[in-house]
Amino acid sequence: MQKSHFSSFHPPQRKLLGPGPSDVNPRILEALSRPTIGHLDPLFIGMMDELKQLLRYAFQTENEVTLPISAPGSAGMECCFVNLVEPGDKVIVCCNGAFGGRMKENVIRCGGEAIIVEDPWGRAVDLDKVEAALKANPDASILAFVHAETSTGALSDAKALAKLAHDYDCLTIVDAVTSLAGVPLKVDEWQLDAVYSGTQKCLSCIPGLSPVTFNERAMEKVKNRKSKVQSWFLDLSLMLGYWEGEGKRAYHHTAPINPLYGLHEALCILQDEGLENSWERHRIQHNSLKAGLENMGLNLSVPEAERLPQLNAVIIPDGVNDAEVRGELLNKYNLEIGAGLGDSAGKLWRIGLMGYSANTGNVLYCLSALKAVLDI
Amino acid sequence: MQKSHFSSFHPPQRKLLGPGPSDVNPRILEALSRPTIGHLDPLFIGMMDELKQLLRYAFQTENEVTLPISAPGSAGMECCFVNLVEPGDKVIVCCNGAFGGRMKENVIRCGGEAIIVEDPWGRAVDLDKVEAALKANPDASILAFVHAETSTGALSDAKALAKLAHDYDCLTIVDAVTSLAGVPLKVDEWQLDAVYSGTQKCLSCIPGLSPVTFNERAMEKVKNRKSKVQSWFLDLSLMLGYWEGEGKRAYHHTAPINPLYGLHEALCILQDEGLENSWERHRIQHNSLKAGLENMGLNLSVPEAERLPQLNAVIIPDGVNDAEVRGELLNKYNLEIGAGLGDSAGKLWRIGLMGYSANTGNVLYCLSALKAVLDI
Repeated sequence: MQKSHFSSFHPPQRKLLGPGPSDVNPRILEALSRPTIGHLDPLFIGMMDELKQLLRYAFQTENEVTLPISAPGSAGMECCFVNLVEPGDKVIVCCNGAFGGRMKENVIRCGGEAIIVEDPWGRAVDLDKVEAALKANPDASILAFVHAETSTGALSDAKALAKLAHDYDCLTIVDAVTSLAGVPLKVDEWQLDAVYSGTQKCLSCIPGLSPVTFNERAMEKVKNRKSKVQSWFLDLSLMLGYWEGEGKRAYHHTAPINPLYGLHEALCILQDEGLENSWERHRIQHNSLKAGLENMGLNLSVPEAERLPQLNAVIIPDGVNDAEVRGELLNKYNLEIGAGLGDSAGKLWRIGLMGYSANTGNVLYCLSALKAVLDI
Repeated sequence: MQKSHFSSFHPPQRKLLGPGPSDVNPRILEALSRPTIGHLDPLFIGMMDELKQLLRYAFQTENEVTLPISAPGSAGMECCFVNLVEPGDKVIVCCNGAFGGRMKENVIRCGGEAIIVEDPWGRAVDLDKVEAALKANPDASILAFVHAETSTGALSDAKALAKLAHDYDCLTIVDAVTSLAGVPLKVDEWQLDAVYSGTQKCLSCIPGLSPVTFNERAMEKVKNRKSKVQSWFLDLSLMLGYWEGEGKRAYHHTAPINPLYGLHEALCILQDEGLENSWERHRIQHNSLKAGLENMGLNLSVPEAERLPQLNAVIIPDGVNDAEVRGELLNKYNLEIGAGLGDSAGKLWRIGLMGYSANTGNVLYCLSALKAVLDI
């Protein structure tokens, strides 16, 4: 209860090449500091409408229900599950990394039954296993999978998975946290039903918001629920009164005004660059990084065809102390790279080249710093 | 799916004298634009520790579990309910405004039973009615109430309500969204068990975060739950692994880095001013506003002893068009005041003097603008 005596926090200028947050474009940092206005101000509401339109472009969708949840990606995930899963629903969950496990936990907390399709960490989701699970569980109503596994660097075939799901009359819930703007993600063309993402990966905005999009098939299930959504904060129907109310918006919660300025700016930057150019930039920088790493004798753990360009899982060479290397990179070079999660702790580094971070300067800096620290 | 052609959003400089957000101190806006660092960076973790300490001062508590939820006040409310209410639990909910109704909705969605103690909008919670409800429901385990009702401008006696609750062996859940830093709030002295607040009221930070504090009695109930918390994102035990893990933090979600810089700055400002001085400043500015309004023949709707200094509910004079006046204040004077909610729509204005907004310049500006628009 005593008064403390702290002073303003002044963070250093790091280079963020971990699994996210990525480096934030200075245009976005500036946008964050613009004057706060009211969340029911007509000018703010106009900006919300632009935001929805900008998100539709990023997701490649015309879904009416496309908006940013006022909380991090984990809440975006929970929003998809609490709105779509009712007690007793059977959900097939693909687990090929940390975030599949989190999906399973969400299903259980909604009172659903989770059928797990397990694949090794660092590999894409196996389509044959998924088809077998769909066949064995004709009463399943949802297939949930991670498009780009941030914990391992593996990319799964979202288009093929969605096709399989629909063949067996299932909806899809897709984690696109790390894929959005980094690799092709075509919500309408691939018919992904409910998709959530994050802002701190390939959009290079600050963390704390979670764009989601629901197509009509998904909204049909939401509208025909037998029970109330267990979360008041994440109840899509209430949220839509706030984000979509024509003429009169119903107050639901107070939107995070300034972070939404930041997201608007991030999406304007994406619009100006063009989605295809953004995908291409991530691919090019990944190739440069990979060439440089291989040149130093370092290898990526994910098979080439399943690799994410924006998240590179690097095998730590024998005899190298993981924590020491990352500590030296951070303290001496102001460079953050990510540690391995779960079983891959101590065995992998995760080098992210996401959004604004994916540039030639960063690739060269990272390679030079690693070379120096590893003394190669 | 077509590329849109939007440009950066540049909000005007408003004066925010509504029910929140309040004017954000420029020191906080600048803090938001500082470089983003990783959420597991040792320097960021050090700042998180300072944040918890600064929040303890603001709440006047030594509660170990004191932290900001990474989402708006509505999520802070839900965090208290989902962690403390189990299916079948009986909760007495005091409804004297819009936010009591939201508490009731939370209880129901947790599978609990809500016993409503109703009071007129614009009045404090009636202690006798609460005692009668506690007597009539000896199996109730929680009393939930709003300390400062943002929808009406009424202040309830949190100390007396908590004493009553404990006399009948109930825990308290307290909404302190608008009271924190604006009027005395003494979590330990008054023995409030679980308390949530917001950042966009008397802390004058941006919206989007929700400080909460749980005492040992509340944590005892959380630890002895029979069922899992229905929300993964708001599960306090998981969150604590991230916010309190000694030495090794367990990743739960990615914290909203820059908004937390902003909250840290807001709490440093409060620490520098001193809590008592902040309360006193709100009281003084309220008195000036009240005197000026009365001088124009305008009256406050809440009885004097139950008034919040930081939120003034003004009775709209007969024959005055509510929406036109607020529109002219906004468009001609860049001044935002709030509309009435629910039954008081069209009958009341809500003039907030919260945090950085509570200064002499704003009071005089607001009075002059109102005088001009109302042509008094």
